[in-house]
Amino acid sequence: MPDTSLLETFPTPTDSPLLIEHVNEEFTSVCPVTGHPDFGTVTVRFEPGASCVELKSLKLYFQSFRNEGIYYEAVTDRIRDDLAGCMEPRWIQVVTNWRGRGGIRSRIVATHGEVPSAWSRG
Amino acid sequence: MPDTSLLETFPTPTDSPLLIEHVNEEFTSVCPVTGHPDFGTVTVRFEPGASCVELKSLKLYFQSFRNEGIYYEAVTDRIRDDLAGCMEPRWIQVVTNWRGRGGIRSRIVATHGEVPSAWSRG
Amino acid sequence: MPDTSLLETFPTPTDSPLLIEHVNEEFTSVCPVTGHPDFGTVTVRFEPGASCVELKSLKLYFQSFRNEGIYYEAVTDRIRDDLAGCMEPRWIQVVTNWRGRGGIRSRIVATHGEVPSAWSRG
Amino acid sequence: MPDTSLLETFPTPTDSPLLIEHVNEEFTSVCPVTGHPDFGTVTVRFEPGASCVELKSLKLYFQSFRNEGIYYEAVTDRIRDDLAGCMEPRWIQVVTNWRGRGGIRSRIVATHGEVPSAWSRG
Amino acid sequence: MPDTSLLETFPTPTDSPLLIEHVNEEFTSVCPVTGHPDFGTVTVRFEPGASCVELKSLKLYFQSFRNEGIYYEAVTDRIRDDLAGCMEPRWIQVVTNWRGRGGIRSRIVATHGEVPSAWSRG
Amino acid sequence: MPDTSLLETFPTPTDSPLLIEHVNEEFTSVCPVTGHPDFGTVTVRFEPGASCVELKSLKLYFQSFRNEGIYYEAVTDRIRDDLAGCMEPRWIQVVTNWRGRGGIRSRIVATHGEVPSAWSRG
Amino acid sequence: MPDTSLLETFPTPTDSPLLIEHVNEEFTSVCPVTGHPDFGTVTVRFEPGASCVELKSLKLYFQSFRNEGIYYEAVTDRIRDDLAGCMEPRWIQVVTNWRGRGGIRSRIVATHGEVPSAWSRG
Amino acid sequence: MPDTSLLETFPTPTDSPLLIEHVNEEFTSVCPVTGHPDFGTVTVRFEPGASCVELKSLKLYFQSFRNEGIYYEAVTDRIRDDLAGCMEPRWIQVVTNWRGRGGIRSRIVATHGEVPSAWSRG
Amino acid sequence: MPDTSLLETFPTPTDSPLLIEHVNEEFTSVCPVTGHPDFGTVTVRFEPGASCVELKSLKLYFQSFRNEGIYYEAVTDRIRDDLAGCMEPRWIQVVTNWRGRGGIRSRIVATHGEVPSAWSRG
Amino acid sequence: MPDTSLLETFPTPTDSPLLIEHVNEEFTSVCPVTGHPDFGTVTVRFEPGASCVELKSLKLYFQSFRNEGIYYEAVTDRIRDDLAGCMEPRWIQVVTNWRGRGGIRSRIVATHGEVPSAWSRG
Repeated sequence: MPDTSLLETFPTPTDSPLLIEHVNEEFTSVCPVTGHPDFGTVTVRFEPGASCVELKSLKLYFQSFRNEGIYYEAVTDRIRDDLAGCMEPRWIQVVTNWRGRGGIRSRIVATHGEVPSAWSRG
Repeated sequence: MPDTSLLETFPTPTDSPLLIEHVNEEFTSVCPVTGHPDFGTVTVRFEPGASCVELKSLKLYFQSFRNEGIYYEAVTDRIRDDLAGCMEPRWIQVVTNWRGRGGIRSRIVATHGEVPSAWSRG
Repeated sequence: MPDTSLLETFPTPTDSPLLIEHVNEEFTSVCPVTGHPDFGTVTVRFEPGASCVELKSLKLYFQSFRNEGIYYEAVTDRIRDDLAGCMEPRWIQVVTNWRGRGGIRSRIVATHGEVPSAWSRG
Repeated sequence: MPDTSLLETFPTPTDSPLLIEHVNEEFTSVCPVTGHPDFGTVTVRFEPGASCVELKSLKLYFQSFRNEGIYYEAVTDRIRDDLAGCMEPRWIQVVTNWRGRGGIRSRIVATHGEVPSAWSRG
Repeated sequence: MPDTSLLETFPTPTDSPLLIEHVNEEFTSVCPVTGHPDFGTVTVRFEPGASCVELKSLKLYFQSFRNEGIYYEAVTDRIRDDLAGCMEPRWIQVVTNWRGRGGIRSRIVATHGEVPSAWSRG
Repeated sequence: MPDTSLLETFPTPTDSPLLIEHVNEEFTSVCPVTGHPDFGTVTVRFEPGASCVELKSLKLYFQSFRNEGIYYEAVTDRIRDDLAGCMEPRWIQVVTNWRGRGGIRSRIVATHGEVPSAWSRG
Repeated sequence: MPDTSLLETFPTPTDSPLLIEHVNEEFTSVCPVTGHPDFGTVTVRFEPGASCVELKSLKLYFQSFRNEGIYYEAVTDRIRDDLAGCMEPRWIQVVTNWRGRGGIRSRIVATHGEVPSAWSRG
Repeated sequence: MPDTSLLETFPTPTDSPLLIEHVNEEFTSVCPVTGHPDFGTVTVRFEPGASCVELKSLKLYFQSFRNEGIYYEAVTDRIRDDLAGCMEPRWIQVVTNWRGRGGIRSRIVATHGEVPSAWSRG
Repeated sequence: MPDTSLLETFPTPTDSPLLIEHVNEEFTSVCPVTGHPDFGTVTVRFEPGASCVELKSLKLYFQSFRNEGIYYEAVTDRIRDDLAGCMEPRWIQVVTNWRGRGGIRSRIVATHGEVPSAWSRG
Repeated sequence: MPDTSLLETFPTPTDSPLLIEHVNEEFTSVCPVTGHPDFGTVTVRFEPGASCVELKSLKLYFQSFRNEGIYYEAVTDRIRDDLAGCMEPRWIQVVTNWRGRGGIRSRIVATHGEVPSAWSRG
């Protein structure tokens, strides 16, 4: 089951403006209704505060959803909350893109904090 | 014929900002003038209020247009109204992209409510 | 020669915000200087007022340029004026993309009215 | 060597808003240091004043750089100045994209005048 | 190890607005934890002040990271600081895109100064 | 239901070698088990004998599968047989590509007669 | 664990030549050494004998590898053997494409029986 | 109307094996039934005998189909015959790809002579 | 320097026909003349004999070329010989694709043994 | 003018089968009729005999065509002859792809010697 204790952080290496994006194209969880697996891409974008999430710990945290029965919306909401909780970023955005069921592809966006002005020009 | 009663909703799982997009690449209806089938992609984007449309019910609702004689503009307008009616979202946008007739491809956009600021950065 | 009388309209089916785009990838006219054919794509985007252009009539109108000797700029300008005249839209934008002559590709944009705020998010 | 006298113009055919883009994917000049040829794409975008550059003359003007030893930045700056000089446009932007030397691709943007509001929606 | 002394500059050839982008698709450094090589693309965008970085010196500077053990964030931060230091640009943005480790691709953006208004339309 | 009587032919216009391919990207039928619609692309390739299938009649024939409950394999087999029956081609190949159900895309190939040697070089 | 008993078949609906391909882009198993998940695409191509594998049973069979620790080569070999065993096809080919570990992508091909001459032209 | 007299040739410059391909992406003729324009790409491949078709004359010959009412199959057959007649090539292949009518795209291949062994490896 | 002792093998898990391809898109070595880094993709395809190369050992072996001054042709030839030596495959093919120097991209193919008939259909 | 004396060779480093491909995407010469520049890609593939062409000398040789008035066919034929003359390869193939004049793209293939069996599987 999703395990927040896997997440580790390291101190942000600079006070200058920095924006970070991690994309995991190998995310899978399980549909809580049908029991069939769901496959998607998870994109995490953030402007760090004092700390950044460590990459290997992020990978293990994502893998902890593998056999969890959980809706698209709840996956997105939970990742936002867990990462916002451990990093206390100035801004974070979590986007999930799902390969779809029944011919319909879905995409969910969850945010926390104000979008930094530098981002949209990146 | 298009059947609004097929649409079901579930309570939005969070109060935090959430934006949702569902894309159906397998939409078909019938041209009311020629009787030939039309094929298109329907994209629904919304910021939920208290409820979200359930995915399987959305698929069945889309399938109910299969043998309906209806113009591009009316398809788009009706889906916007039906979904706005059952979900009462803060914002909804329906975009239809049609494969075209007579060498002309078409795209119709219908909206309801104010675009949330977070969307365009999603 | 370009024939505005071919254009027909139908009443806009809703008062709710609606944006419409028609793309014709099979446009051809003739270079007035060399007599060689020009090939391009014509994109028409508009927010309708009380009426919308009918698709088949639009196709026949586009075909009426087939043997007309006319510059890129004049094609774009004329389509904008002809469609603005017959539909009286709140906003219209005509974009022509030309395959090019002498190794140079060209693109012309003609507009009329204010861009609706919903468009750029569509 | 670059020859401004090759550039010819014709009167802008309308007072209505018009934006024009010409893309030449076959631009070549010579590196002034090594003597090796440089290859790039030159994009010219402008809102015309009273006159527009004629396409064939533009092509011959571009070809006149073929054996000129000149830096990326100077090519871009010179085309902007030459075209601004002969057309007196309300706005002009020249973008050069270079295939690269030593594993590094480069892109230079030179502008003159205010970006018209209609452009970014084109 | 990263060697700032490799960087050379030349005087900016014009006072007119100029924006410059260099993209190096062949960047490699070493992960300081595992010792495995990292591969990425480095994009540098800037509005020059009185001087511009010379291309060949930039290439050699990038190559000096080849056997350095250094984190993604620190690579990006250091290139921004080194280039801002030697050029004193009005604005500089450094974007690194990394091929990824453990199924996660990353992208880091570091900036210095105000984004020039002309850039986002380039 | 699939209606072979819709198919019309015209005499092949030459005795010289001719190979013909028609691709319909807008094919839809219904899954006989679930009742959900299936969407696919149908490709017909043939070396004509004395007659060729007429294009508009082929389109109407394809449309006659719209509300038929029929398996992928049977669609492919039936189109091959129906077209072989009405045209008596020297060779015919029918390929169906299906958008998929349950995360699995399928492709079925049915043939009749010997592949002409010229085809594989076409 | 991989469960062959999930596989079901149905009688091949025709004696005419038929070739079938099923592509599953959502395959996942587990690396037996590291315990990390592997992600890949499995393509199954066959010329049926008297029976064909049923699609939904194939999907469930693929899902039964989800938490199995198994090498790339063994996955490919086992699927070939299991499907050859239950269908007794004239020819079968199983191709697995893996997203990769440590910067190396892999592809494994396992076959059984003679390639039908019609396939390579399909 | 199609005008064979426009075609000119020049002597093949070598006795060594030479294979030539010309692709015209701007071909248009008229449907003889509906009067609507058809748009397609014409590819001509040949191994020359003593003479080769001159490029500018080939372009004018293609343009002479612009207002001709003629079927896809007849266009392809006629180009093959006209070019075979004026060049007497060892081998020629004409492939036409049509943008389609009524949702169906078509492709016609006409050949004359034996495919040279070097071609399929080109 | 390239270190063959890094290569490890494991027993081929089946006697049935198996073809294997590993693609490393992150290969780098050094030009022996200029000292500048070279970047390329290495593809290894083989039909195993009694043993297969282990993936992690292959990755470390590729990394051992990182600071070696060596020509394109010699890299390709050496990898073929080293892998053929440690695995004794029935067939092996090594393809290197290089990003290029001085505007020229290169590709080298080295083989050992007979191409298995199943491969070209894979 | 094209200068064969620029070409240098080095001894082939192995007796094992080796196939080599060099692709120059920055080739330019001049049309002998109109004086306008031609742009194309030149691909050279060969199985070496005792010697291989040196890359930098090949680049300078290609650059020597820059201001030569010469037909597509003659460029291709001459490169084949010049390289065959200096290398004496077992097989050589030269393919030129031209961006086109008058809307027609062209591709010329010149060969010398027998295609090695290993090539087509590369």
